[in-house]
Amino acid sequence: MYRKINLKPPIFEMGLKGYLYGKKALEFAKAADIISKKYEISIIFDPQYVDIPKIVEKTESLYIFAQHMDSVEIGRGIGSILPEALKEAGVVGTILNHAERRIKLSEIYRTIKRADDVGLATLVCADSPQEAAAVAQLNPNIVLAEPPQLIGTGKPVGKLLKDFISETINLVKKINPEIIICSGAGIRNADDIKKIIRLGAEATGSTSAILKADDPARKLEEMIKALKEVWLETHPY
Amino acid sequence: MYRKINLKPPIFEMGLKGYLYGKKALEFAKAADIISKKYEISIIFDPQYVDIPKIVEKTESLYIFAQHMDSVEIGRGIGSILPEALKEAGVVGTILNHAERRIKLSEIYRTIKRADDVGLATLVCADSPQEAAAVAQLNPNIVLAEPPQLIGTGKPVGKLLKDFISETINLVKKINPEIIICSGAGIRNADDIKKIIRLGAEATGSTSAILKADDPARKLEEMIKALKEVWLETHPY
Amino acid sequence: MYRKINLKPPIFEMGLKGYLYGKKALEFAKAADIISKKYEISIIFDPQYVDIPKIVEKTESLYIFAQHMDSVEIGRGIGSILPEALKEAGVVGTILNHAERRIKLSEIYRTIKRADDVGLATLVCADSPQEAAAVAQLNPNIVLAEPPQLIGTGKPVGKLLKDFISETINLVKKINPEIIICSGAGIRNADDIKKIIRLGAEATGSTSAILKADDPARKLEEMIKALKEVWLETHPY
Amino acid sequence: MYRKINLKPPIFEMGLKGYLYGKKALEFAKAADIISKKYEISIIFDPQYVDIPKIVEKTESLYIFAQHMDSVEIGRGIGSILPEALKEAGVVGTILNHAERRIKLSEIYRTIKRADDVGLATLVCADSPQEAAAVAQLNPNIVLAEPPQLIGTGKPVGKLLKDFISETINLVKKINPEIIICSGAGIRNADDIKKIIRLGAEATGSTSAILKADDPARKLEEMIKALKEVWLETHPY
Repeated sequence: MYRKINLKPPIFEMGLKGYLYGKKALEFAKAADIISKKYEISIIFDPQYVDIPKIVEKTESLYIFAQHMDSVEIGRGIGSILPEALKEAGVVGTILNHAERRIKLSEIYRTIKRADDVGLATLVCADSPQEAAAVAQLNPNIVLAEPPQLIGTGKPVGKLLKDFISETINLVKKINPEIIICSGAGIRNADDIKKIIRLGAEATGSTSAILKADDPARKLEEMIKALKEVWLETHPY
Repeated sequence: MYRKINLKPPIFEMGLKGYLYGKKALEFAKAADIISKKYEISIIFDPQYVDIPKIVEKTESLYIFAQHMDSVEIGRGIGSILPEALKEAGVVGTILNHAERRIKLSEIYRTIKRADDVGLATLVCADSPQEAAAVAQLNPNIVLAEPPQLIGTGKPVGKLLKDFISETINLVKKINPEIIICSGAGIRNADDIKKIIRLGAEATGSTSAILKADDPARKLEEMIKALKEVWLETHPY
Repeated sequence: MYRKINLKPPIFEMGLKGYLYGKKALEFAKAADIISKKYEISIIFDPQYVDIPKIVEKTESLYIFAQHMDSVEIGRGIGSILPEALKEAGVVGTILNHAERRIKLSEIYRTIKRADDVGLATLVCADSPQEAAAVAQLNPNIVLAEPPQLIGTGKPVGKLLKDFISETINLVKKINPEIIICSGAGIRNADDIKKIIRLGAEATGSTSAILKADDPARKLEEMIKALKEVWLETHPY
Repeated sequence: MYRKINLKPPIFEMGLKGYLYGKKALEFAKAADIISKKYEISIIFDPQYVDIPKIVEKTESLYIFAQHMDSVEIGRGIGSILPEALKEAGVVGTILNHAERRIKLSEIYRTIKRADDVGLATLVCADSPQEAAAVAQLNPNIVLAEPPQLIGTGKPVGKLLKDFISETINLVKKINPEIIICSGAGIRNADDIKKIIRLGAEATGSTSAILKADDPARKLEEMIKALKEVWLETHPY
């Protein structure tokens, strides 16, 4: 866990994956930056690597994360994502082990250690409360636990997710209460955001529902506003 | 094979791998750009992804390649290198299947097709003349064939490499004479460059010998100068 | 290409994958063995590794292949499939690079060489005529080329497959006429077998249509009988 | 954790990897079987897959494990190691995530669940106390924690290993005291066995020191005898 970063709940993770890139990614990042400042909500924003420099330069409030990072050291390793290169480019953290980019247990551990050394936060994904607990033993900043059968489906937040989040919180917080719990498979709208946070999640996010919306920036604002409201409601002091 | 690119022998491939990044990579790229123009030699230059935008902006003559690219389509695929994102960032080609980043045969084929569609050149690596011939069947712009036991060793160019290059040329040119033959494992200096080109290679390159030199730009110039000289000697008309 | 094996067209590849194992796999192997002798048709039969010894012992005519093999040498490599262990167990060949088990280009080459050295035949899969040609450069005994979009679908043999097989034959036979051409994605019945062979394939196969049939042995016999008939029809001398 | 298996410390894990196969593996298994009975020590014995049936048939006391297993379900998945096929072949457990065969975190979890369902024990490897704790969250029968820099080296058991084992025991037993702790990188002889057990390990093992010895069966007996003695010494009641 990298500690020299002021990354506090509530957090919204906005993953671009391969949906948006280039100028359109930059325009959307600028809109997200304004929304982040307006609602005072931390947004983790992870574009394609080649789009990182301009987004770093043109935004102020976003937490720019890499979509993935390797544990490789300075030197050999063509095609690898070097931690030091991300750091110098202004990245503040990285996602690891997403359902679309699973990595080996040993690589998760090595990469978290590399991130700590270089000065990068880590958001590590897991498919189940048990895997979230396993990841928690490796001490990342954030654990993102989602039932894989819900990712990208836009299915309503139901009992399955409720039990899933409760168990994840129980297991992870017992290991280390500082680890931030993120969840949110299938988030479609403001209402889903509120349900997720009321279930105890400290962070959430969405990709497809936002990027496939007619007006992605407006959809993002709708969700961030909901996150602000539900957070004040559930954390009144 | 992407045809709308003016990539002609002799070519020098300067791979940064994870040795150089950030400001130092940019400074070195500027030096390489000047050398490329001075000697009128095409240099393929492949930095860390996050360093690509500034190098594209600050150089004129380099052929900026990605160190790797995925065949993924626009949409899902967190952590993947999206061809369209590279293209919009100003990249003109990609390396594939390097000894440090081997990929599946089916992925080599799909990625070459994606590169063709998006408008990117491909330099595909192989360990043996037979694998170079296999790669040639998939129609890349350049085949880089190197004996893996020589990569990074700095061992002198000997009989092993001579037979290796001859056989590679015979096999690949029979399949498609337009494919450019690159070779060069263990290149240490101007002398090695000359030997490789006299063996029939149309392109060569070096990473460790240059980046571990006291003055990398000077070392690069020494090699580029040798490449120019030996090319004029072996291709007099 | 391992030459000390009398593996001649027409050939039927009967892949068990993970559908059938243990006693049921052995019973089915015995039935296949009888069918192979009755129709004098070579059947490549590839069970789960742990089922190989008893099937080798209890059958006479089948060509027992491994479903996959690694290029690993005697020594380290826990969990790997050692060529020498397969050979001593009575296996006569291995499948490589199936759509459900893609491997790296460099590993295909190394494993074919290991098979040649140890004395095992190789049946290497490819997704396209171009990849079949790439594989042919690495000199396996058999190339199995199938359009991946048809595998396991049971869709009728149509124009797509016709063009696919023609192009595969043209490309592969030009490289090495000794390489046997196998094709057959989506084979459902005797009729499909006949169509495939009339298109020029020298070998074919089926898994799901046979193993999901009410009486797999009967379904297999129906296909082998068709293979015999169509082969005599298309190769009258 | 599969509970219907009587697998109790002290345990010796004898991994054949790809060192020994066929007749020689069977002869060595028979010798190990006699040694296991003579000293009443549980030996986990993991041969090449194709050698499993005969070793199951010809031995009585060994716990035959697979060197690796996949989480694949009955059906597709050519080249995969199907849990049900192992079970029917008489295997009683599987090794997972060895340093020579690392797997993804999500695959470790799925495969442990498959093993539980099918009725197989799991011995899961880890590189560090933290990864051992992560694995413990996924509830295997045995965690094998070894510093990777010591595997296969035959370096003496020193302070590094002492701290490593203490921390592993502390972390794992807090999560689940039923999980058996195995350790032993670089075990060369009887003396190393005694040191490892005195440090608190409940199981240990060796491959290269035994299989490279002039008389492997004698070397194994020397280690098993030491394990028996040190266990009685450290667990007197």
